[in-house]
Amino acid sequence: MLLSDYHCYNFSSMKQTFLSQLNWRHATKKFDKNKKVDQEILSQLLEAIRMTPTSLGLQPFHTYVITDQKIKNKIKDNSYLQSQVSENSHLLVICSRIDAANRVNEYVELCAKGKLVESIKLKPMETMMKGYMKGKSKEDIRSWADAQAYIALGFAMAACAELGVDSCPIGGFNPPAVDKILDLPENLRSTVLLPIGYRKEDPKKKKIRFSNEDLFTFIK
Amino acid sequence: MLLSDYHCYNFSSMKQTFLSQLNWRHATKKFDKNKKVDQEILSQLLEAIRMTPTSLGLQPFHTYVITDQKIKNKIKDNSYLQSQVSENSHLLVICSRIDAANRVNEYVELCAKGKLVESIKLKPMETMMKGYMKGKSKEDIRSWADAQAYIALGFAMAACAELGVDSCPIGGFNPPAVDKILDLPENLRSTVLLPIGYRKEDPKKKKIRFSNEDLFTFIK
Repeated sequence: MLLSDYHCYNFSSMKQTFLSQLNWRHATKKFDKNKKVDQEILSQLLEAIRMTPTSLGLQPFHTYVITDQKIKNKIKDNSYLQSQVSENSHLLVICSRIDAANRVNEYVELCAKGKLVESIKLKPMETMMKGYMKGKSKEDIRSWADAQAYIALGFAMAACAELGVDSCPIGGFNPPAVDKILDLPENLRSTVLLPIGYRKEDPKKKKIRFSNEDLFTFIK
Repeated sequence: MLLSDYHCYNFSSMKQTFLSQLNWRHATKKFDKNKKVDQEILSQLLEAIRMTPTSLGLQPFHTYVITDQKIKNKIKDNSYLQSQVSENSHLLVICSRIDAANRVNEYVELCAKGKLVESIKLKPMETMMKGYMKGKSKEDIRSWADAQAYIALGFAMAACAELGVDSCPIGGFNPPAVDKILDLPENLRSTVLLPIGYRKEDPKKKKIRFSNEDLFTFIK
């Protein structure tokens, strides 16, 4: 093997992509207990969550990254005993922010501090954002924040696929119980769990997906 | 340049990845009118939506892919006149399915036809899925389907980034009006718009995102 080939090979193996991993990724039921996601990989995953596009840029979510085994076990006890909730490298709990008006204030402050928006535009931006929120009921705000959390979940799973990290999204758990276990502040509610790690074995079942005909309509 | 270098170079340029594009992607306000997304690229994007992981695998969503200019214009008129809704290469309208019980039937049929699940396991699977749905109100089912549509939105935007396609997610529109324009069947509701295309110019503003400290808590 020539050095240049070796270089190419290395480069290509580093560059597995989200799209090339679409079939590889699956909802991993059993993680390898001995393989942990290292800090550098974890940082890249969290950066994808941080860069998730959201409504008005408000990022109304907060993610708990849990390695404490006792906490994982307690959450498993409130997730229909699904073993992947406690047996994983890291358990992510993506939470929604339900205090939209506060989040607008924090966003305006962030823009002002970093001089990210011209100061003359800050007040109109704040007024527009607060007007948008004022028209919403408590339930609407919750749905709005949850939607953003689910975009983040999508970005997180896409990042995992690209990084060769396995994940298993879980909506089947008792949110009020998990909120209590995590001692969440008043403005957060747990929305979805995402255990990550490395699969113990490849899945035996074929992937099941509906067809293009089922999922798409073209209007030309 | 050596041939081997050339090969490497080509390979790396083909292999831009989702994660390497996190900063490049942005909510594109103005698309280049003269640049259209070609069929091969569009197919890759739609495949990412098709492969989106969802609750119970039910994929309770349907996406309209619109190039008809008159329809785009009508939808823009119901989207606070945001010009990117009509001026783009393709307008995607991601819709939620609100008939969960039907979807379970379709899923069971899909599994049976493709022999994707052992026939002996089909009935218990159906019973479990219908039991899960039975506990939910109409509003719960809608929220559940919307959440899955937002995961698909995340996967779609991740795919766009990797493919070098620009996009602009839009929640600010009048869903009942759009449902009417698209003449949606009873079981579909429009949830989010995603115009795609190629940016007319790079954004002038710096990307605004909250810090890691704001977004993450580690429990070790």
